[in-house]
Amino acid sequence: MNPNKNPWFRREGLALLTDFYELTMMAGQWKEQRSDQRVTFNYFFRSLPPHTGFAVFAGLESFLDYLEHLRFGDDDIDYLRSLNIFGDDFLEHLHTFRPTCTVQAVPEGTLVYPYEPILQIEGTIFETLLIESALLNLLNFQTLIATKAARICLAANGDPVMEFGLRRAHGPDGGVSGSRAAHIGGCNSTSNVLAGKTFGIPVGGTHAHSWVMSFPSELEAFRTFARHYPDRCVLLVDTYDTETSGVPNAITVFKEMHAAGIDVRPAIRLDSGDLSRLSKIAYQKMTEAGLEDPLIVASNDLDEELVADLKRQGSKINAWGVGTHLITAYDAPALSGVYKLVAIREGDTWHSRMKISSNIEKATDPGRKQLIRYFDRDDHPLCDVMYLDGEDHHTGGPVTGRSRTWPHRKVHAASPAWQEELLQSVVVDGKRLHESPPIADIRARALAQIAALPEEFKRMRNPQIYDVMLSESLGELKDSMLSNPDLA
Amino acid sequence: MNPNKNPWFRREGLALLTDFYELTMMAGQWKEQRSDQRVTFNYFFRSLPPHTGFAVFAGLESFLDYLEHLRFGDDDIDYLRSLNIFGDDFLEHLHTFRPTCTVQAVPEGTLVYPYEPILQIEGTIFETLLIESALLNLLNFQTLIATKAARICLAANGDPVMEFGLRRAHGPDGGVSGSRAAHIGGCNSTSNVLAGKTFGIPVGGTHAHSWVMSFPSELEAFRTFARHYPDRCVLLVDTYDTETSGVPNAITVFKEMHAAGIDVRPAIRLDSGDLSRLSKIAYQKMTEAGLEDPLIVASNDLDEELVADLKRQGSKINAWGVGTHLITAYDAPALSGVYKLVAIREGDTWHSRMKISSNIEKATDPGRKQLIRYFDRDDHPLCDVMYLDGEDHHTGGPVTGRSRTWPHRKVHAASPAWQEELLQSVVVDGKRLHESPPIADIRARALAQIAALPEEFKRMRNPQIYDVMLSESLGELKDSMLSNPDLA
Repeated sequence: MNPNKNPWFRREGLALLTDFYELTMMAGQWKEQRSDQRVTFNYFFRSLPPHTGFAVFAGLESFLDYLEHLRFGDDDIDYLRSLNIFGDDFLEHLHTFRPTCTVQAVPEGTLVYPYEPILQIEGTIFETLLIESALLNLLNFQTLIATKAARICLAANGDPVMEFGLRRAHGPDGGVSGSRAAHIGGCNSTSNVLAGKTFGIPVGGTHAHSWVMSFPSELEAFRTFARHYPDRCVLLVDTYDTETSGVPNAITVFKEMHAAGIDVRPAIRLDSGDLSRLSKIAYQKMTEAGLEDPLIVASNDLDEELVADLKRQGSKINAWGVGTHLITAYDAPALSGVYKLVAIREGDTWHSRMKISSNIEKATDPGRKQLIRYFDRDDHPLCDVMYLDGEDHHTGGPVTGRSRTWPHRKVHAASPAWQEELLQSVVVDGKRLHESPPIADIRARALAQIAALPEEFKRMRNPQIYDVMLSESLGELKDSMLSNPDLA
Repeated sequence: MNPNKNPWFRREGLALLTDFYELTMMAGQWKEQRSDQRVTFNYFFRSLPPHTGFAVFAGLESFLDYLEHLRFGDDDIDYLRSLNIFGDDFLEHLHTFRPTCTVQAVPEGTLVYPYEPILQIEGTIFETLLIESALLNLLNFQTLIATKAARICLAANGDPVMEFGLRRAHGPDGGVSGSRAAHIGGCNSTSNVLAGKTFGIPVGGTHAHSWVMSFPSELEAFRTFARHYPDRCVLLVDTYDTETSGVPNAITVFKEMHAAGIDVRPAIRLDSGDLSRLSKIAYQKMTEAGLEDPLIVASNDLDEELVADLKRQGSKINAWGVGTHLITAYDAPALSGVYKLVAIREGDTWHSRMKISSNIEKATDPGRKQLIRYFDRDDHPLCDVMYLDGEDHHTGGPVTGRSRTWPHRKVHAASPAWQEELLQSVVVDGKRLHESPPIADIRARALAQIAALPEEFKRMRNPQIYDVMLSESLGELKDSMLSNPDLA
């Protein structure tokens, strides 16, 4: 789950992080002697968060780490035995179980869109059932938070964004994994020290109201903080009154530091009141006092809408501390990622499967796939196409395909300059192919892709919908299966 | 964090689960030789979730477990040293640090209200800073989810509610601790096997669409499931078509079981389509086929509003599987719990402190406190009063006190029959006084309190506001500090 050798959780303690029905289905398939049947599942999500034109895929390394260390301990088996549901032969099989599946995945940090196969897992029905819940848990959450972070960073328009969410996160891992995802999505630093240690994310922070209240006066509290942390002195100015007390005392302290020859950037944090108005007042007072280019950090229930609005109003805030709304993805705190069976192998042949629904949007796309992204000559993405595994890809001229929701219908996009295969093998027969990349590389991929994405997909409201189509062959297969459900 | 001897996380791996500014403040206080100053903090929240008249306090045992195992490992110290911010003397002090604080807490499972001191922590400023973030993280999240679960269970009005949230929870702990809280708040079981093992929560579940899709036919899939799990056979009927395929096939299988002398309750799960309409159709078809009293489980993005609405429409659903909306508290996924300095000891005297705000609601209630709940002769709660520590409590006649937001104003409630001191000592000088109670006891306390709460506080919309007042002495103290901020 992380590059640290000694993480805060037990890597081998997560085998039971699964829904109970997975185990009953596994035991049923085992007793039917069908549990070695090979199947292929796809992970995808059905809708983007509200008003959002793209998602930042995150959580892959956490999932691969889980998979690599997946085994049932003695205490896991003892617990399952205590339920008096499972036979000893099944429990013994669990005890010796090691994953042997093959995983293809879109690289972590890639921008992804609804219905795209982000992971494709081939394995026995036994193992593909076991891992479903943990896979969904890890990928849904981190993708949700990375996407929210990207949105907030877009609103901040280049200003640094600090993630401050630990105290409102959903438990320790909601904080730690959430910080990881927020960093991938664009946040510059976290307040969460355990996340900093675990993933190598830069840590930062200012001080709390209690620091000020524990001293006889605000001025003495500020002076003391400045003496100990001259290089990272951001003074929280709203403990008593921002305008009449906090800002004047901060000015006194920074002027004292400058007079003493300590050349630091004057920096304050606003945490209550009207952040726009107070930032302008603070900026004016500080610059009038000769404190040039102050860093003015704002916090207090910020989200991307408020950040965008504060910038629009010409506030003098130039750094943002974002907590609750980021770490919980407050306005829509779950991503609707699912994991669906797309093919079953009988003998040497893969048979495509789909789940038909009364809602055509929700009908799954059948079959084992490859996902190709096409780019124009300026490296902007044009569209994505889902191909059937082994199918020839587009070779020239405009990209053509079929509509996902009306697969009888032909659709097309512009002529691409180049293309990228997005599903890449990361685990073969249970063995990881590569070491975990540094988080900085994952984050750099996300930031580069966001930068290359045309503005119409990055609008805060009503963004353009990115074009994801089925290949001709996949479209024909889906169309025929929809027309003849017995094939599904 | 749990009664299990071998939890999935490392109990002693959480020392760095703190915000970075806590460490810089601790080091600052340490260098000022002020870090042993004794202070008292209160944990409280400012507002209830939307439309909600009470909160179910949860997370206490998780916090006490964290506190008991709080120590810095070698790797924690190495990481902090690598930041080049902290001196070796401070790091050595951290390395040998053990908590010595005293904790008073409202018992877990108690109903609590805005601004009430739920925990009161007395200790050195060093340790009270260190634990802030973890305390808020653990208590805010679990109280949020226990409260949401209570609300959903009220809507279900006695029907069993199963928690199915793992796949949309915020990481592994969002699932595991979330299941714990949901069980305390009233859910009967969880699908999360790791939560079941860790906390002794009953686990349950049905089967997935993939079970059906992996067999040649739905009927064969149902028959096989019934053969292996006759005692827990709940058939998911919507893989192909609920009305024309799933329900008829389920009827066939239950009739076959009955014909074979297997006396099981017929049970199905609906997971898509119009749950009310389909439940009535299924009920009619099943009872017409001689399958009496069927269990009809519904799932699919349920929340308390939808559960209440489905019951109001006379649906035949009699068990509920609730996932995303419960485990994320979807409509408001964070509780606004905070941790504020209320007193500082100088010599032998505690000096009360308060944080004044331009918003009188947000001004803290100063001083070390006791919280008393008054009950009428039918054991219904009447009101709560915050007293200053050591102050005489009400002894007869109507309860009188002061308004929290306008402490000059006298307020009163009815005459109580009895009272309970809610803040109880749980840790003294760093030592826990009691073993963790079984989760069943915590849950029973919550359910009994919810049952005893008058209906006006349990309305789904616009509930009555429960009466929380300040004692005369606390009201006078707050009034004087508001009038003369230099005292604060």
